[in-house]
Amino acid sequence: MADSETDLAAGPEADFDNKPWASYLKAALGFRNHWYPACFSKEIAEGECLGLELLAERVLFKRIGGRVYAIEDRCAHRGVPFSARPECYSANTVTCWYHGFTYDLRDGKLVAIVTDPESPLIGKVALRTYRVEERQNVVFVFIGDGDPPPLVEDVQPGFLDDDLYIAPDGDRGVVRSNWRLAAENGVDASHIYIHRNSRLLSALGRAVPLASYFVTREDMVVDTPGGPKGVVKGAGRKISVWETEIEGERIAARTMPDEDRAGSKGTDTSLWMPCGLKVDPFPALGITHFEWYVPIDEHSHYYMVTWGKRVSDPVEQERFAHEVDTYWREMVVDRFNDEDVFAREAMERFYSEEDGWNRERLYRPDVVVTEWRKLASKHNRGIQGRGYAGRRAP
Amino acid sequence: MADSETDLAAGPEADFDNKPWASYLKAALGFRNHWYPACFSKEIAEGECLGLELLAERVLFKRIGGRVYAIEDRCAHRGVPFSARPECYSANTVTCWYHGFTYDLRDGKLVAIVTDPESPLIGKVALRTYRVEERQNVVFVFIGDGDPPPLVEDVQPGFLDDDLYIAPDGDRGVVRSNWRLAAENGVDASHIYIHRNSRLLSALGRAVPLASYFVTREDMVVDTPGGPKGVVKGAGRKISVWETEIEGERIAARTMPDEDRAGSKGTDTSLWMPCGLKVDPFPALGITHFEWYVPIDEHSHYYMVTWGKRVSDPVEQERFAHEVDTYWREMVVDRFNDEDVFAREAMERFYSEEDGWNRERLYRPDVVVTEWRKLASKHNRGIQGRGYAGRRAP
Amino acid sequence: MADSETDLAAGPEADFDNKPWASYLKAALGFRNHWYPACFSKEIAEGECLGLELLAERVLFKRIGGRVYAIEDRCAHRGVPFSARPECYSANTVTCWYHGFTYDLRDGKLVAIVTDPESPLIGKVALRTYRVEERQNVVFVFIGDGDPPPLVEDVQPGFLDDDLYIAPDGDRGVVRSNWRLAAENGVDASHIYIHRNSRLLSALGRAVPLASYFVTREDMVVDTPGGPKGVVKGAGRKISVWETEIEGERIAARTMPDEDRAGSKGTDTSLWMPCGLKVDPFPALGITHFEWYVPIDEHSHYYMVTWGKRVSDPVEQERFAHEVDTYWREMVVDRFNDEDVFAREAMERFYSEEDGWNRERLYRPDVVVTEWRKLASKHNRGIQGRGYAGRRAP
Repeated sequence: MADSETDLAAGPEADFDNKPWASYLKAALGFRNHWYPACFSKEIAEGECLGLELLAERVLFKRIGGRVYAIEDRCAHRGVPFSARPECYSANTVTCWYHGFTYDLRDGKLVAIVTDPESPLIGKVALRTYRVEERQNVVFVFIGDGDPPPLVEDVQPGFLDDDLYIAPDGDRGVVRSNWRLAAENGVDASHIYIHRNSRLLSALGRAVPLASYFVTREDMVVDTPGGPKGVVKGAGRKISVWETEIEGERIAARTMPDEDRAGSKGTDTSLWMPCGLKVDPFPALGITHFEWYVPIDEHSHYYMVTWGKRVSDPVEQERFAHEVDTYWREMVVDRFNDEDVFAREAMERFYSEEDGWNRERLYRPDVVVTEWRKLASKHNRGIQGRGYAGRRAP
Repeated sequence: MADSETDLAAGPEADFDNKPWASYLKAALGFRNHWYPACFSKEIAEGECLGLELLAERVLFKRIGGRVYAIEDRCAHRGVPFSARPECYSANTVTCWYHGFTYDLRDGKLVAIVTDPESPLIGKVALRTYRVEERQNVVFVFIGDGDPPPLVEDVQPGFLDDDLYIAPDGDRGVVRSNWRLAAENGVDASHIYIHRNSRLLSALGRAVPLASYFVTREDMVVDTPGGPKGVVKGAGRKISVWETEIEGERIAARTMPDEDRAGSKGTDTSLWMPCGLKVDPFPALGITHFEWYVPIDEHSHYYMVTWGKRVSDPVEQERFAHEVDTYWREMVVDRFNDEDVFAREAMERFYSEEDGWNRERLYRPDVVVTEWRKLASKHNRGIQGRGYAGRRAP
Repeated sequence: MADSETDLAAGPEADFDNKPWASYLKAALGFRNHWYPACFSKEIAEGECLGLELLAERVLFKRIGGRVYAIEDRCAHRGVPFSARPECYSANTVTCWYHGFTYDLRDGKLVAIVTDPESPLIGKVALRTYRVEERQNVVFVFIGDGDPPPLVEDVQPGFLDDDLYIAPDGDRGVVRSNWRLAAENGVDASHIYIHRNSRLLSALGRAVPLASYFVTREDMVVDTPGGPKGVVKGAGRKISVWETEIEGERIAARTMPDEDRAGSKGTDTSLWMPCGLKVDPFPALGITHFEWYVPIDEHSHYYMVTWGKRVSDPVEQERFAHEVDTYWREMVVDRFNDEDVFAREAMERFYSEEDGWNRERLYRPDVVVTEWRKLASKHNRGIQGRGYAGRRAP
């Protein structure tokens, strides 16, 4: 481990460009030319609109004939957001509430102006459009230029599997930290420590160590061409810390392995480009946990969480959806992830104001974090910049 | 219209300096050396003080023997505002609550220091003074240097007419947008669209088109030497849009011309330097509507509204004042102008953060907006800068 | 006085570097390498932690075996503050709630990591430590580098005297102004004017002039080598203003000297490096008032106030502590110092946004302020910069 420790303990003289994750450090607004989950399907009913800020771009979503389309949420005329007061006279369009500029969601084109029906601008002006794919009760949007790669390359492996049923009632909220601090907290091998008094784990009777992490980089990185790119800390070959001491005081996991009532096995945690986590199984056997950290701006992100189960029978699917809606969402989001949110927000000042990216002092369990940074630096398709928020449609 | 359309649809390569309204684009804090309405007369009783921020300058008003005077609202000594705790020992003075520096409002001179009665500074230090004129129940102040031009050049035509009675109970509030977005919304020929569901118009039974605007620039600009400078969209030679369709869906004005119960004729709307709108008649026949957008700072303005009627009989004047106070103010401000406030604030992000002044895509009805910008660029007497907030008295 | 008046009334052409207090003008975050009061002893019980921001540095205090220690309140690993959720497994340590990095408060060293007990970082990483001295029920901390000078050089003379008993129940709060505006308000010879209607002074029946100040610089500066450095406006050789007039209106002190019921004598007020005021006697005969303005950041400071009395008998000490706790604290802090807080905050805009340091217009009584600025410029041991907030432990 001496080598990796040397890598991680970069001295104060190290700067952004010398680190093997230079482009990651520039991605305060996320990576461009990737698919991002925007919201859950249930958040956009037929004919309804939803406005979201994603990677500093303002995006309007509308469901038309079952399918969700997305355009810039900003009228070409004077820049007001349609979503401030959504107005739709017809199925395929949105009309600006201010002067009646009307756009077709399918191609972004200005198709009518209520206040100037004969305007020569009609048909000549267009808003930026966004590619949308809706899968597994989640609406994904491509933030980028040109033809997107297949969605499967930008989601957690298995998420799109036909036999995986994803509960429709996930959770989405705003967290006040940069998205990278969230992603790193998610995959962070040893942050389980903050969950040691978790009410969820107590309720489940699970034995959870003080920390648990890989000690080698082997098999940690997954970057098969054509597939999702990510880092995995698998169930095997890991160190688990169950007890230690400080000045003679014993510190031990709340539930030790021999007291486990949940029949816990190892859990695989993995983080995937551009910003998705997978924990399997979690919170219980047979359930897979998915979450995403979608950049809003430099200092906030949407935190999306949902769960999947391999059940194909509609009755069982309904039962699982009900279980998620009435039990797991509250147990996980309010009684477990709240600790993660606390940690992400507590890091923000250091990283945004105090040169934290250069001054942090990483340690051995962070190898998964640094492997993630290197992977993200290598496999991203572009760095999002503030300029895109101001880009004119082609 | 092809020509004007070409003018308006300036490409992304256009920049501020190439536009024919370059100086307008620099006037985020308004134009210097103009008269501005500061407040309504009733807001300053005899002997009382009022502190306001206007064009980023802090100004203190006090009424003395019926007349309103104004000086810098910032003690020369250590910069605290008098208005934080107004203190007046004598009719003509204001005394700083902190150390007793006492200034004569009439010339700004330091006339006494309570805590150092023999100070050699007395008589040698002076605060900036502001010229004030009070007319028609409104207190106007000249923000600028040197001798001001006659007030009549900086107010809406007719406002100062002897036979026009202005109701004393106007409305003044803060709106969170740059003042130019407010001015442009006010004169904007087609923004009537946002008022189509207005409760005020429904109550009045007025037929209001979806939009209504000039199609030529002819007679639009008024810039007679020695008179107010402004742009007018008159009642004649205009296009009115009463109905249109989008994807086969008919969109029509709420009340069509043949259903008009109010005997509506055309309405003249005009916008005058430095920031005043006139709508005649409005909200009802025989009433003229006046409003102003007075810059506070780059991102907010005071929105002042009042109404006039040509009634010289004191009893009728009293009746009109009562009508305004009990009916029109609420009907217009709360049930009509609230839409305008919404629109101004919705534009702010685009123009202040997203290069909106270069990226906006104007259309034919905006000819009155661009004529206004050109007029303002040509006839302003100076651009207000942040530096004036810090200028030392001569 | 003509000379000093000339000095003080520097024209607009004067700039920071030409003033004889140039380094003072750079000390928005305070002076480095000085002792500062951090809090009152009672605020940190045995084994408890307290996190404070001082001069833009985040500092964690913990009492161990009766003694208070201080380290950087920011984990070396990922920069979160320990104080967000203080966690102590043993007497001498604090453990980061996030990953279990554990530091010894006595030397700042990383002594354990709960989640990686065998980490090679243990013993090799250290946080910045701060020297602490606890005297007279106040916890002092040295914000600087290297060996600190004796505490006695950085506190008000007499404060550390063995026979002076300091009441434990002082007051500490946040004020929204730069610390220098607070210090200058404190020593300001003529600001007593803002207290002329003070309920405290009325209750005491003290005769307080409209203003009172030295007229010569003689004996004003105290800078004996090895002792505290400060400026004093003593009880002698001063001018007191009891009445004056403005436009024929008489303004007089509320209680004139011949009406004094409190047997008031003169009061000495003095201001000491780095930021402590002493008023003796105040609020009553036999009591000495001490206060400090400790920089938090450029725009806020902690305002600490307490009182001392020369009583050595434990019963009398207890009686005085009770008197402070039940009477003086409320009377002075809530009914007297609130005026000072109002004044400090009212100056902030001028000095932080409007070039107030160059544009202020000082007058004769301000000689004590300018003497303070010169003293502080000459005797400070360094200027605190933002960079220190980001400095890595050696």
